[in-house]
Amino acid sequence: MAAKKILSTNQISQHKSPNDCWIVIDNQVWDVTDFLEAHPGGSTVILKYAGRDATKAYSQVHAPSVIEKELPSERKVGVLDETTVTNEWVKPPPTANARVMLQNEKPPLHTLINAHDFEIVASKTASKKTWAFYSSASTDLITRDANKLSFDRIWFRPRVLRNVRSVNTTTRLLRTDTSLPLFVSPAAMAKLIHPEGELAIARACERKGIFQGVSNNSSHTLDQIKEAAPSANLFFQLYVNRDREKSASLLRQCSSNPNVKAIFVTVDAAWPGKREADERVKADEDLTVPMAPSKAKNDKKGGGLGRVMAGFIDPGLTWEDLTWVRQHTHLPVCLKGVMSTDDAILAMEAGLDGILLSNHGGRNLDTSPPSIIILLELHKRCPEIFDKMEVYLDSGIRRGTDILKAICLGATAVGMGRSMLFAANYGQNGVEHLIDIMKDELETAMRNIGITSLEDAGPNLVNTADIDHLVPYSASHPYAWKIAKGRRSRL
Amino acid sequence: MAAKKILSTNQISQHKSPNDCWIVIDNQVWDVTDFLEAHPGGSTVILKYAGRDATKAYSQVHAPSVIEKELPSERKVGVLDETTVTNEWVKPPPTANARVMLQNEKPPLHTLINAHDFEIVASKTASKKTWAFYSSASTDLITRDANKLSFDRIWFRPRVLRNVRSVNTTTRLLRTDTSLPLFVSPAAMAKLIHPEGELAIARACERKGIFQGVSNNSSHTLDQIKEAAPSANLFFQLYVNRDREKSASLLRQCSSNPNVKAIFVTVDAAWPGKREADERVKADEDLTVPMAPSKAKNDKKGGGLGRVMAGFIDPGLTWEDLTWVRQHTHLPVCLKGVMSTDDAILAMEAGLDGILLSNHGGRNLDTSPPSIIILLELHKRCPEIFDKMEVYLDSGIRRGTDILKAICLGATAVGMGRSMLFAANYGQNGVEHLIDIMKDELETAMRNIGITSLEDAGPNLVNTADIDHLVPYSASHPYAWKIAKGRRSRL
Amino acid sequence: MAAKKILSTNQISQHKSPNDCWIVIDNQVWDVTDFLEAHPGGSTVILKYAGRDATKAYSQVHAPSVIEKELPSERKVGVLDETTVTNEWVKPPPTANARVMLQNEKPPLHTLINAHDFEIVASKTASKKTWAFYSSASTDLITRDANKLSFDRIWFRPRVLRNVRSVNTTTRLLRTDTSLPLFVSPAAMAKLIHPEGELAIARACERKGIFQGVSNNSSHTLDQIKEAAPSANLFFQLYVNRDREKSASLLRQCSSNPNVKAIFVTVDAAWPGKREADERVKADEDLTVPMAPSKAKNDKKGGGLGRVMAGFIDPGLTWEDLTWVRQHTHLPVCLKGVMSTDDAILAMEAGLDGILLSNHGGRNLDTSPPSIIILLELHKRCPEIFDKMEVYLDSGIRRGTDILKAICLGATAVGMGRSMLFAANYGQNGVEHLIDIMKDELETAMRNIGITSLEDAGPNLVNTADIDHLVPYSASHPYAWKIAKGRRSRL
Amino acid sequence: MAAKKILSTNQISQHKSPNDCWIVIDNQVWDVTDFLEAHPGGSTVILKYAGRDATKAYSQVHAPSVIEKELPSERKVGVLDETTVTNEWVKPPPTANARVMLQNEKPPLHTLINAHDFEIVASKTASKKTWAFYSSASTDLITRDANKLSFDRIWFRPRVLRNVRSVNTTTRLLRTDTSLPLFVSPAAMAKLIHPEGELAIARACERKGIFQGVSNNSSHTLDQIKEAAPSANLFFQLYVNRDREKSASLLRQCSSNPNVKAIFVTVDAAWPGKREADERVKADEDLTVPMAPSKAKNDKKGGGLGRVMAGFIDPGLTWEDLTWVRQHTHLPVCLKGVMSTDDAILAMEAGLDGILLSNHGGRNLDTSPPSIIILLELHKRCPEIFDKMEVYLDSGIRRGTDILKAICLGATAVGMGRSMLFAANYGQNGVEHLIDIMKDELETAMRNIGITSLEDAGPNLVNTADIDHLVPYSASHPYAWKIAKGRRSRL
Repeated sequence: MAAKKILSTNQISQHKSPNDCWIVIDNQVWDVTDFLEAHPGGSTVILKYAGRDATKAYSQVHAPSVIEKELPSERKVGVLDETTVTNEWVKPPPTANARVMLQNEKPPLHTLINAHDFEIVASKTASKKTWAFYSSASTDLITRDANKLSFDRIWFRPRVLRNVRSVNTTTRLLRTDTSLPLFVSPAAMAKLIHPEGELAIARACERKGIFQGVSNNSSHTLDQIKEAAPSANLFFQLYVNRDREKSASLLRQCSSNPNVKAIFVTVDAAWPGKREADERVKADEDLTVPMAPSKAKNDKKGGGLGRVMAGFIDPGLTWEDLTWVRQHTHLPVCLKGVMSTDDAILAMEAGLDGILLSNHGGRNLDTSPPSIIILLELHKRCPEIFDKMEVYLDSGIRRGTDILKAICLGATAVGMGRSMLFAANYGQNGVEHLIDIMKDELETAMRNIGITSLEDAGPNLVNTADIDHLVPYSASHPYAWKIAKGRRSRL
Repeated sequence: MAAKKILSTNQISQHKSPNDCWIVIDNQVWDVTDFLEAHPGGSTVILKYAGRDATKAYSQVHAPSVIEKELPSERKVGVLDETTVTNEWVKPPPTANARVMLQNEKPPLHTLINAHDFEIVASKTASKKTWAFYSSASTDLITRDANKLSFDRIWFRPRVLRNVRSVNTTTRLLRTDTSLPLFVSPAAMAKLIHPEGELAIARACERKGIFQGVSNNSSHTLDQIKEAAPSANLFFQLYVNRDREKSASLLRQCSSNPNVKAIFVTVDAAWPGKREADERVKADEDLTVPMAPSKAKNDKKGGGLGRVMAGFIDPGLTWEDLTWVRQHTHLPVCLKGVMSTDDAILAMEAGLDGILLSNHGGRNLDTSPPSIIILLELHKRCPEIFDKMEVYLDSGIRRGTDILKAICLGATAVGMGRSMLFAANYGQNGVEHLIDIMKDELETAMRNIGITSLEDAGPNLVNTADIDHLVPYSASHPYAWKIAKGRRSRL
Repeated sequence: MAAKKILSTNQISQHKSPNDCWIVIDNQVWDVTDFLEAHPGGSTVILKYAGRDATKAYSQVHAPSVIEKELPSERKVGVLDETTVTNEWVKPPPTANARVMLQNEKPPLHTLINAHDFEIVASKTASKKTWAFYSSASTDLITRDANKLSFDRIWFRPRVLRNVRSVNTTTRLLRTDTSLPLFVSPAAMAKLIHPEGELAIARACERKGIFQGVSNNSSHTLDQIKEAAPSANLFFQLYVNRDREKSASLLRQCSSNPNVKAIFVTVDAAWPGKREADERVKADEDLTVPMAPSKAKNDKKGGGLGRVMAGFIDPGLTWEDLTWVRQHTHLPVCLKGVMSTDDAILAMEAGLDGILLSNHGGRNLDTSPPSIIILLELHKRCPEIFDKMEVYLDSGIRRGTDILKAICLGATAVGMGRSMLFAANYGQNGVEHLIDIMKDELETAMRNIGITSLEDAGPNLVNTADIDHLVPYSASHPYAWKIAKGRRSRL
Repeated sequence: MAAKKILSTNQISQHKSPNDCWIVIDNQVWDVTDFLEAHPGGSTVILKYAGRDATKAYSQVHAPSVIEKELPSERKVGVLDETTVTNEWVKPPPTANARVMLQNEKPPLHTLINAHDFEIVASKTASKKTWAFYSSASTDLITRDANKLSFDRIWFRPRVLRNVRSVNTTTRLLRTDTSLPLFVSPAAMAKLIHPEGELAIARACERKGIFQGVSNNSSHTLDQIKEAAPSANLFFQLYVNRDREKSASLLRQCSSNPNVKAIFVTVDAAWPGKREADERVKADEDLTVPMAPSKAKNDKKGGGLGRVMAGFIDPGLTWEDLTWVRQHTHLPVCLKGVMSTDDAILAMEAGLDGILLSNHGGRNLDTSPPSIIILLELHKRCPEIFDKMEVYLDSGIRRGTDILKAICLGATAVGMGRSMLFAANYGQNGVEHLIDIMKDELETAMRNIGITSLEDAGPNLVNTADIDHLVPYSASHPYAWKIAKGRRSRL
C-alpha cells in the first residue's frame, strides 16, 4: 500500500472499528489498529476518532512529531483527499459516554469513582467463570439484594455547625491501629482476576494502613503475602478442615507470622450454598461435551466453583472445636459468619475476642438476614456485648455512608469482600484507588453529619425507623412456645 | 449435488439456521439439518457451529469415523475451500447462553437446576393450551404472586457451629414414612404435558419415596397408577360430584387400593375461578370460527379448560356432607383448600385428620390469602391445632427454603403442584430430577440453619416480622361488630 | 387486471396489509381489502391469512360457493401459480394474539373478558381527544393508581363447605330493587365514544336491572333517556350552576321524571382538577396554529375539555345550599364526592339520604384519598352512619372482588364510571356485556368466600391488615392541636 | 437549481430532516432548512410537514403571500409534479407528540404545563456540563428521590361544600408580604443555563411578587440584581468564607441593600457532597486529554463543578460564628439546611429568626432525611417552635399540592431551586410561567380541600399515616443509651 495513496473521507470512514481503525492527523491517514492497546492514554480516546479526523484532539496533547516517531511509517496508509470533506466529516465525534467501554478493555482507573464502577468493569472484563464465581449468590438473590438495601433504608440525622475542618478516620481493631474502620473481607482465589491476586491486595492494604483478611482459599500463601507486604496487618480466615491436622498446621503458620493478628473461624458456610450463576457456567460447559461420562456424575448437585472448593470444609464443626482452635494458637480468635443474636451471645459467653456478623455476601443461604438487622437486634437483646467484644460486619457495604451507619450502630469495623476483588482487577493500584474512594466517602459523610472522629459516631445520628420492624421481638419467635415438640405423624 | 463440490467459507456460513444447517468437520461439509433432532447430545451443541467449522468440538467427544457411520453419504455436501478461510472464520462461536433454547426443544435435563427452570422450559415447549391451563391463575394474579413472595419475606435466623455432617429429611405423614416433607399436590390432567402423565409422576414418587396426591381429574385411573407404581404412597383428591353415587364409587375404589392412604376433600373450588389466560386461549380459537353457533352460547362465561372441567363439581357441598364421605371410606379424611382459621378450627372440631392450607395455587379466587399467612394466624388463634391434626400447605413452594420455613412454622409437609407438572414435561426422569433438586435445597438449608432433623425445625429459626402485620388480629375483623345486620335499603 | 393472471406465492405475499389484502382460496386469489370491514366474523380472522392461502380456515366455516356469491368477480385478481409453493408458504400463519388488534378496529365483543379489556380497546379505537378526556386524571396520577391498588391490598378470608349452589346478587338502594350492588357512575358526554351515548347505557341498565347515574353534562337529556329506556332506574348527578335558576329547572325536570329516584349533588369538584393528558391534547393542537391570538389567552391554565366544561359549576356551594336543593325536589338527596369522615358525619347530621364516597376517579385532586380508606375510617369514627344512611363508593372498581370487598365493609352499592364509558364504545351491547362480566365475577367471588346473599357479606370476610395503617387515627391529625393558630409572619 | 424544476412526491419526501427540510405550499416546493430556527411559531410545526404538503396547515394561519415575502426566492426549489401524488402523500402527517422535541430546541413555552416539563426540556437543551451540575445529587440519589416521594405519600383529607369562589394565596414571610408561600431557593450560577441568569429570575420574582434567595455563588452581583429588579424582595444565602473578611464584606453589601430582607447562613454543606453525575462529566473530559499533568492531581477526589466551587467554604463554622454574623448585619438571620430537630431547637434557643429545613436537594449527603420528615418530627418533639420562629422547607417541591401539604404541616413557605433554574432556561418568561403554574396548582388544591386562605391550612387536612412510622421516636435513637462510650479496641 503506497504512502501517497489518496483516500476519500468515505473510504476512511469505513475503518472505524477496533479491529480496523484509521485516523487522520494533519491530513495523513494512519492505521492505528495495532497501536490501540499500546496507547498510554488508553484506546477509548483514539476510537472516538476511528475513521475520522483526530487532528484537533491530538494537537491538544501531543506535538506534531510524536506520532511520526511512535508509529512505523508503513502505518501511514495514505493522504486525505480534501476535496471529499463534507459537513458530516467535520462534525465533532459523538461525546463518549464514560460508562461505555470496549468489551474486555478496562477504562482508565481514575475514571472509576465508586465501588459500583469496579463491579461494572469486572462484569465486562473478567472471564465468564471468574465473574460467575465472584458475583454469584445463593438461589434467588434475596439476601444479596437485601444487604445493600437495608443500609439504604437507614437515614442519617445530620448535625450542623460543628467544626469539621479536620476529620480523623483512624480506629483500633484487634489491638492494632488502623487508618479506617474498614478491612478487606477474606475472599477466595483473588488470582482469578489478577495474576498478583492477594499480593496486590496486601500491598495496597499495607500502603493504606488497613487490615486484610486472608482467606483459607487464598491463591497465595501467608509467606508469599508477608514477603510482598512485610508490614501488612492481617487476620486469617480459617475453614476448619475435615482433616484437623491440616488446620493445625495452618494455625501454626499464622501463630508464627507476626503480621497475623487474629484467627477468624468461618461458621457461615457449614454447607456450600447453591450459587446458580456459578453452577450454570458449569452447566453451559457441559453442553459442549454432553457425553463425557466423567462429568455426568455430579451434575445434579451442580459443579460450580463454589461447591467444588468447599469439599474439604468440615460441616461437623461445633462450639467444642473452638477449644481445639484456641489450643493451637495464641492469637485472638473471632467468629466469622454469626447470623443470630443467640450465637452472638454464645460467642460472648465463650470468651471469644470478636464476631463478624456476615451472611457470606448472600452467597450461602438465601433469606439469611442482612447483617445490619442482626446488629440492631443485638442492641435490643444484648447491648452489653459491645463492651465485651469487638463486633464487625460485612455483606452489602458499598459506600462510605454504609460504613458510617454500621459504626454509628456499634460496629468496630466493617469488611468489603467482592468489591475489593473487583478492584484487584486493576492490581494493587485498583485496590488502593478503592480504599481512597471509601476513605473520601467516609470522611465526607462524617463531616456532613457533623463529626470529626469515630468516637463521636453513635446511634443518635441515625434513624432506623424504616427497618426497626424487621428486627425480631425477642430471643425466640413470638409463636415459639406454641409449637408442640413432637411433629411426627399425629394420626 | 456432488460430494466433491468445493465450497467457500462464505457459502457455508449461509447455512446456519435450524432449518438449513451445515457444519464442517475435518474439511468435509455436512448438511446435518435432518440429524439435529436425532443427535443424542441435543441440537444446541450442533447449532452452535451451524455454518461453521466444528472440528475441534467434535473431536473432543467423537472419534473421526463416527459421523461417517452415522450420516448417509449424500449429506456430505462438499469440501471446504481452504483458501477462503478468514480470521473471522476461525474464531470460536459465540458462547451459548444456557437459557436460550430452540423453541419446542427441551434442553438437556441436567442443565435444569431449579424449579423455575422447569417452568421456563414448559412455557416454551408445552402446547399453548396446556401452558394456559397449567400456568393460569385467577383474574389479576395477585394471590398467585403473593404466594411465593410471602415466603421470600420470611427470614431465617440461622444457628452456627452445629454438627451438620449428616442430615435427615425423613418424616411421617398420614401414618406413613416419607423421605421428604414434600408431596405432589394433586393437579388435573398430567397427560396434557406428557403421554405418561400421572404414571410418570407416580413412578418418580415411588422411586424417591414421597407421596403423590392423585387428582379426581387425573388422566389415568388409580388402577393404572397402581400398576405403574405398585408401592407408591398416594392420597386421593376428591371433588364431590353433583351425582353422589359417582363419588361413592370413587371412594370405594380408593378404599380397596392399599396405596391410597387418605382422602382429601377439595373445598377451595366451590366455584371455578376465572383464569383469564385459560379463557383467552378459548377466545382466540373462537376467532377462527366466529360463526359456529354452538360455541357462541357460553362465550360470556369464558370457555377455558378450567371452567369446562369444573362442571360436575357440586357447589352445594357442606360440612354435613363430610359425614357422608366418612361413611364411604375407612381412610383418614382431610380437607384440601382451607383458607381461614375459622374453618381450620371447624375441621379440627369435626375430628378430621388433616387440613391442607391452599388457595389452589391462586387459581380460584384472587386475593384469597397466601397459605403461609393462614399458618401464622393458626399460631395466634389456635396453636393447639398442631397437636390435634396434621397441617399441610401448598401454593407458592418453589425452593427448599420455602419447605423449611413452612416446617419451622408447624406444617407437617408441603405440596408442589404446578412445578411437578412442569417437571413431568420430561416424564419420570424430570419429576425425579425435581425431587432431587428439592431434597438437595432442603438439606442445604437445614444444614445452613444448623439442624440435621426436621424435629429440630421450629419457629425460633425464622423471623416473620416482615409479614406479621398481615396476619389478622382476631377471629373476626376489628370492625366486624360495627356493621349493622340489615344492609338493605335504609331510606 | 385479468382474472386469469397467474400469480406467484411471492407476488401474493406482498399484499398482506389491511390496506392491501389478498388471500387465496381454492387456488383463486382474491383482493378482499374492501371486504375486511364487512366480514361478519370480523377482519381479524381474514387478516391472519393476508397474503396467504386461507383455504383450510375458510372451509371450516364456509361452503365453497359463499365467497363467489359475496364478492364481485373483479375482486378475483388471479390464480395461484402452484409451482411457486414453498415450505414457508404452506406453514400455518402465526397464531394470532387476541390482545393485538388493528388500530381503530374493535375486536369482537365476546373476546373482551374483563373491564381492563374495554379500557385497552378504547385506548386504541377512541379518538385522541376522547381518550384523553376519559382516561386522564389529576397531575401525577397518584390517586388514580391508589384507587385500584387499595382494593388489591385487601385479602379475603374465604369460608368453605357452604352450600353455594345458587347465589343472589340483588339488593335495594334508593328504596328500589336492583339486580346488583352496582350502578353506572355519572360521567360526562358519553356521546364522545358512541353516537348513542347515554341512551345506549340507559338501555343496557334497564335490561340488566341496575341504576344509571345521569351526569349533569350528559350528552342526552333526561327526556331522551326516558324515551330510550322507559323503565330504567336513574339518579341525577347535579353540578349546582352559578346560575341557580338553571339548576332549579333541572331539579324540576328530575322531580317530574318518575325514573329519577334521587339527586346526587356533586361536591368533589369544587374546582376543575388539572388533568394533564387532557390539557396536552389541547396544547398539541395549539402547535399547529401557534399564532392564533384568540387561543393564546387561556394557554397558561390549560384548555383541556375538563376545564372547559367546568366553567359553569359554582365553586361557592355550601351546606346551606343543600336546603335550597331540597326545596326544589321531593326526591332523596345524596352527596357525591365525600372524601372525609368529617363531611360524612356532617351529611348524616344534615339528614341526607346517602353519600357517595368518591375522589372523582382521581380526576380532581391528586393525593385525595382512595374511597375505601374513607370507608374504613367511617368504621373507626362513626360506625353508626351505616344505620343512618346509605353509603356508596366509586373510584377504582374494576373487578367483582372489588365490589364484594366494598359491600363486606358496609357499602350499599358501588359505581363504575370510566369502565362503563369504555364499554359504551360498543354501544348498548358493550355495556350489557360488561355488566354481565361484573355479575359473573361478583357471583364467583361470593361463592368462593362461601356466601350466597349480600346480606351475609360482612367485615369478617375480609382482612384489611395491609392498609389499616393508612387510616388516620382520629377526627383530626395527631399533630393538629400543636399548630398555633396564626401562621402569619412571626418575626 | 432552477426554480421551475419539476419534483416528484418521492423526491420531495427525501427531504424530511431538520438538516434538509422541504415543504410544499400551493404546489411550490420550498427548502426551509435555514428558516426552521427563525420561524416565530417554532420549528416543530414545520417539521411536522417536512417532505410533505403543508398547504392546509399553512393556510389556517398565514396569508398566501407571507412565505413569498419571508423567504428568498432561491429557497423555492421546484414545483410539485401533481401526477405523482399518491394516497400516502395526501394523508395528514402523524400527530405530533408534544413531548417529542428536537434535540437542542426548546418547545414553545406555553406547551410546558408543569415543573417536570421544565426539567425534561432542560435535560435536552442545556449543555452537558450544566445539566450535570444542576441535576446531579449525592451518590446513590436516595435522598433526591425520597424528597418528592415523601410528599406523594401524604394524603389530603379534603373538605367539601365550602365556598371557594375566591382564594387567597398571600402570606407574610420575613416581615414582608408575598403573593405566594413560595420562594426561589438560592442556587448557584444561573448564568449557566441562560445569559441573564439571576437577573431573569429576579425580574420574574419582582413581577410575580415572590421572594428570591440569592446564592453566594450567584453569577450576578446583588447590585446587578437590584438594578434589574429594583423592587424585588431578596434574601441572601451566605456560605461563610474561610476568609471571614470576604463574608463580612458581603454582609455589609446586604445590609445596605434595602431589597435584602434576611441572611440565610448555609449549614447543610459543611463539606461538598459527592455528585457523581457532575464528577463524571469531568472524568469524561479527562479522557480526551489523558496526559495533561495539571488535571491528574485531583482526579481521585473528582473534579465536578460542585466540588470545585466549594473550595472557599469554611467547614469550621460553628454556632459561635453566628454571633459574628449577627454583628455584621442588622438583618434577620436564618439557617439554611437544618436536618434534625436537635439543631432546630438549638436554632430556636439561639434566637434565630427562621430555619430552612433542607437537604440541599439531596445534593450533599445521601440518605439525609427528607425535609418533610423533619417537619413532622418537629411536631412531635418541639411544637412550640412554630410560634417562635418561621420554618421554611425545600427539597422535593414540584407541585402545588406539595406546597399546600408543607403549609398544612406548619411551614411558613417553601422553596424551589432546581425547577426555577430549569425554568430560567426560558429566561424571565420561563420563571414567570413556572410561578404561574405553581400558583394555579396551589389555588386548585386549596379549593379542592375546601379552604380559601392559607390561614385555614392545618394538619387536620392531611393524613400522614403512610410516613408517620419514619419519624424517629425521640430526641435520640432508642438504642442510644446502650452503646458504651469508648468504642476503641476492646481486646
